[in-house]
This record gives sequence, structure tokens and C-alpha cells, in this order.
Amino acid sequence: MSNICLTYGTKTSAQQIRAALTTLDGLSHWWTSDTAGDPSEGGTLTFTFGSNGGFDMRVIKSNARQVHWECVKGPDEWVGTSIEFDIDERAAHSQLLFRHRGWKAENGFFHHCSMKWATFLLSMRDYVESGVGRPYPDDLKIEAVGM
Amino acid sequence: MSNICLTYGTKTSAQQIRAALTTLDGLSHWWTSDTAGDPSEGGTLTFTFGSNGGFDMRVIKSNARQVHWECVKGPDEWVGTSIEFDIDERAAHSQLLFRHRGWKAENGFFHHCSMKWATFLLSMRDYVESGVGRPYPDDLKIEAVGM
Repeated sequence: MSNICLTYGTKTSAQQIRAALTTLDGLSHWWTSDTAGDPSEGGTLTFTFGSNGGFDMRVIKSNARQVHWECVKGPDEWVGTSIEFDIDERAAHSQLLFRHRGWKAENGFFHHCSMKWATFLLSMRDYVESGVGRPYPDDLKIEAVGM
Repeated sequence: MSNICLTYGTKTSAQQIRAALTTLDGLSHWWTSDTAGDPSEGGTLTFTFGSNGGFDMRVIKSNARQVHWECVKGPDEWVGTSIEFDIDERAAHSQLLFRHRGWKAENGFFHHCSMKWATFLLSMRDYVESGVGRPYPDDLKIEAVGM
């Protein structure tokens, strides 16, 4: 099993990060503007990326420090994997620790998703700091073919 | 052992990417402006990031499709790890596949370096596409403390 692990630090409060992860408004401002469903613990969220498809995520945990999802619908490589956002509130800043756990292979798609997650977490940081992120379809493309 | 895996695609030629990885001028335009040493196979490169320290890399492989380094000096977590850039030239674009192999633990530093590598690979892509990257000290900071 392989995991994608990323992080960012920000002077923005943990509460702002939490809002970006637990409200439809917050989520739609950094990952994909087409976000629907129930963001509370036990609920299911649907993230759609136009004709590229999307992901359904069951909210496994949602508390002040942890927001964890399980992918229940999406590409084969994603179903059953776990997406974990942990918020560490420190004296002068907040740290977001991100893990996408449980990949079966380190293939090209793993490389692609790892880089895309990095760009979307930077989008989240811009959003919590300035109110403006880069959610799909205005996301930073990392492939010459436009994805 | 854990690995950082990232990628980008670009319409720029494989040769341009290769120049960014195998010349002091190229390397100093996307990773750190303070780059010295011998970039040919068997040589050792020294990358310095001001007071943050740096890395010495032995060039293990350097051919048209692969540039692989071994970290021989730097933070404990890096020494002995392998940094691999593979260039896949396709019909209409080039794909860079990046791996930083052999991490002993998925700790906070692993998260930090994974995100920093993502920003530096985006810097490399900007450099090969436009001639302007974001090497240290003008790199995109991902931590509230400025690193």
C-alpha cells in the first residue's frame, strides 16, 4: 500500500480550514465548484469534475481536528482508499496534514493524483488566506492534455 | 520504505527538460539559485538553500531519458535516498515522472518535502515552458514560518 502525504502551514485559524473542509461552500471554493451532498459525519459528498467524472466520499470522521473520508465511488484506484485531513493548531499558525492512504500501486495515475492533490491543497490555502482558490474548472492544469 | 511520486506533462521537448536537469544553469533556475558541482554521470552536485542547509547529490545515471541522483550529504532523512527524474517523450508532449525513493518514515518532514517537491517541479515546468522558474530564495513558501 502507498500513501500520498502533503502539508501546508498558514497563519489562518484552524476554524477557517475546518470550514473549507466541512461546508459545501468551503469545499466548492478549492476542489471542485460542483460539490454536493451532506458534509456531516456519516453523510456522503459528491465531487464532480465535468466529463472527467468524480468521486463520492463517505464522511468517516468530522471533528475539530480531523476530517476523514472514504472513497465509495470513483475510479477503481480510489474506491476504498481513505482521504484524511488533520488540522494541527499551534501557537502562531495552523498546519494541515493531508494523507490519501491505501493506494495499491505507484503507477502513473498515482503520480498524477499526488501532484493534483498538491495543487488543490495550495488552492485551499489560497482560499482560506484570501477567499479565492482555484477549484475545477479553473484549477491549475498539470498535464499537457489539459487535466 | 515510502516514496514521493509526482509528475507533470508539457508540450516542451524532452531535450529542454533534460537541460533543466543536467546543466548548472538549468538546475539553478528551478530548484536553488545556489547550485554547484559536476552534473555529469559520476559527478557530485551541491544544492544550497541559505541558512536552511542543503544537499549533495551523486549523479548515478544521466542519459537521454533518466537522471538519477543519490543523496550523499544532507538531513539524516535524505542521506541514502534516491531522487529519480524519468523523461517520457510522447507524440505531442513530454512527461516527467519524479520519484524520491527510500524514506524510512511518513513523518511531518516527509509531508513537507513532498509538498516542496511539488512546488519545485511546477517551478521546473514554468522554467522549461517560459524560461522563468521559482528557485530558492524566490520559491513558493508552503509554511507559515517561511520555508
